[in-house]
Amino acid sequence: METPRYTPLVQSLPANVPFVGPEEQERMRGAPFAARLGANENVFGPSPLALAAMREEAENVWKYGDPTSHDLRAALARHLGVAVDNVLVGEGIDGLLGNLVRLLIGPGDAVVTSDGAYPTFNYHVAGFGGVLHKVPYRDDHEDLAALIARAREVDARLIYLSNPDNPMGTWRQGAEIVAALGDLPEGCLLLLDEAYVEFAPEGTAAEVAAEDPRVIRMRTFSKAYGMAGARIGYAIGAGGLIRSFDKIRNHFGMNRMAQAGALAALGDHGWLAHVQAEVRRARAEIARIAGGNGLGVIPSAANFVSVDCGRDGDFARRVLAGLVARGVFVRMPFVAPQDRCIRISCGRPQDLEVLAGALPEALAKAAKL
Amino acid sequence: METPRYTPLVQSLPANVPFVGPEEQERMRGAPFAARLGANENVFGPSPLALAAMREEAENVWKYGDPTSHDLRAALARHLGVAVDNVLVGEGIDGLLGNLVRLLIGPGDAVVTSDGAYPTFNYHVAGFGGVLHKVPYRDDHEDLAALIARAREVDARLIYLSNPDNPMGTWRQGAEIVAALGDLPEGCLLLLDEAYVEFAPEGTAAEVAAEDPRVIRMRTFSKAYGMAGARIGYAIGAGGLIRSFDKIRNHFGMNRMAQAGALAALGDHGWLAHVQAEVRRARAEIARIAGGNGLGVIPSAANFVSVDCGRDGDFARRVLAGLVARGVFVRMPFVAPQDRCIRISCGRPQDLEVLAGALPEALAKAAKL
Repeated sequence: METPRYTPLVQSLPANVPFVGPEEQERMRGAPFAARLGANENVFGPSPLALAAMREEAENVWKYGDPTSHDLRAALARHLGVAVDNVLVGEGIDGLLGNLVRLLIGPGDAVVTSDGAYPTFNYHVAGFGGVLHKVPYRDDHEDLAALIARAREVDARLIYLSNPDNPMGTWRQGAEIVAALGDLPEGCLLLLDEAYVEFAPEGTAAEVAAEDPRVIRMRTFSKAYGMAGARIGYAIGAGGLIRSFDKIRNHFGMNRMAQAGALAALGDHGWLAHVQAEVRRARAEIARIAGGNGLGVIPSAANFVSVDCGRDGDFARRVLAGLVARGVFVRMPFVAPQDRCIRISCGRPQDLEVLAGALPEALAKAAKL
Repeated sequence: METPRYTPLVQSLPANVPFVGPEEQERMRGAPFAARLGANENVFGPSPLALAAMREEAENVWKYGDPTSHDLRAALARHLGVAVDNVLVGEGIDGLLGNLVRLLIGPGDAVVTSDGAYPTFNYHVAGFGGVLHKVPYRDDHEDLAALIARAREVDARLIYLSNPDNPMGTWRQGAEIVAALGDLPEGCLLLLDEAYVEFAPEGTAAEVAAEDPRVIRMRTFSKAYGMAGARIGYAIGAGGLIRSFDKIRNHFGMNRMAQAGALAALGDHGWLAHVQAEVRRARAEIARIAGGNGLGVIPSAANFVSVDCGRDGDFARRVLAGLVARGVFVRMPFVAPQDRCIRISCGRPQDLEVLAGALPEALAKAAKL
């Protein structure tokens, strides 16, 4: 008998990881990236008030964070117009996704998502033995009606939908989602990932009743609030579902500086507006650069733009390799036909200048092979 | 059918939480604690170099942390004299415990621990459906021979042992643990929690060969390094076991400021020595205060001291309630006969003065009831 003995499920899991981080890529290529535009991070950074709060709270880092995240949850509840019991704070959406899947999905349980949607969600589903059923995108949008139909077919316990979508940046009205809730099969929860919603037009956020048991929404301080490295996200859902996380979550898992920073960030509406304006400007600039190279873009409601390289996935992968070789960290969709695109995060003017310099060469080299 | 549908395991789990945090207790009692001595936090705080590193890294919080924690792992490997592949960084020992249990323990699998040892470990075992087998303490020490014997009886996959022990503060030579490895039944992993080892006498840390498949050791920046609120711990084990965490862990779960702070903390030997001296001084002072009230203490190799209240658990619980009512946050062992004690974390002179003021009244009140 080998020591240790892993569970049968763990033995069956692959060893590969969802994403290779940019630092690892830099070590492998032996040089730093000149522009970091691959992980939809927010280079415009956190509110100065959030920065100051984190630095001040460092003094108290000898204390564990409040396991209930009381003050931040109270502020979020006020911000969202819901009760504190409808809000859960966790270690980023990634951490919340893992816990939600653990609550609902055991070996063999069916889950529905879009083919090419967030791989980390799929990683968690596989990690708890769930069976993923994938629905194709329709015109570069996640296809809500098809997701729901498939869920009914396979008796799914969970549907994943992101709005705005990642990796395409497309979006739909929140009201459409609310209207579709009545079509959800019984016993099926809709997980609505709104990580990018602060970048989207008015009306994109779904106005779901907080106690509606059919939906859980997730949001984050990693994107519009510029705090990806702090690891802090939140979920909004019915009180019973939110409380159930207490059965399994790592109660003392929150970083204390992150809690303080998020609280301060939430109060700085001016900085959020500044970031939103910078992101709009960057989206337009990415479209301009793409157009100058004869490429189109997918209209985006997020802090990234998918640039349509106009040919197949192999061509786009060559373009991506060319960009990476020229010091531009970018990523791309994994699945056809979305993999004809390169996904470029919104950067500062100096970041996008690097992109503008590298793209023509990357395209030329990709066309020659 | 209800929505959502929880797994049968989750439905069976209790809703209670492992610990109520001091902030929640302060909200319930309507007043802050005058001395925070209940969670074995390190009030002497992190190295000034670690503080500076975290504050500087706040500037980069818009970036996700390196999912491999490459630089910190490399520094830890050098510090420990092992290969990088033998080191895993995670969200505190609590986070690492959860992931380790998930790797090894499924419904019905046997796990052995001491009755009254770390409740958060038990929480994780229950959370994955494991069956806990508990062995009594012997003379306030965890009983390694009995733990191993029980593991053999019940075909355990995992044994939990902390050295120094929490909540008693007792310890054994690391060499004794190494010598006992040969007695472990096949297929049983020893999880050695060395969270407090930096406070212990030379020879307490177990000098295990890094590639020994029978042991995983866990340590933390929460205790001697004064960074509980940063959430950063590490595991040392065989390469295959360490790599297996990559199948399930939250890869982008590390706080970037915590990574930077831990790296700086690890290099500041002078600060660690300062903290160790302060903790020794505080242990002696707690013993002096206890003695002045006619109470003995359990000799401790950790940053807390268990004060023997000299009677039964009910009496000690009344003493604890009296201390809490007088603004002293403390905790106590859960299980008899260890629950005759109150566990008091090492504080600054001003913290222990508050304790010294409150203890006689708390004892008098407890004796009268």
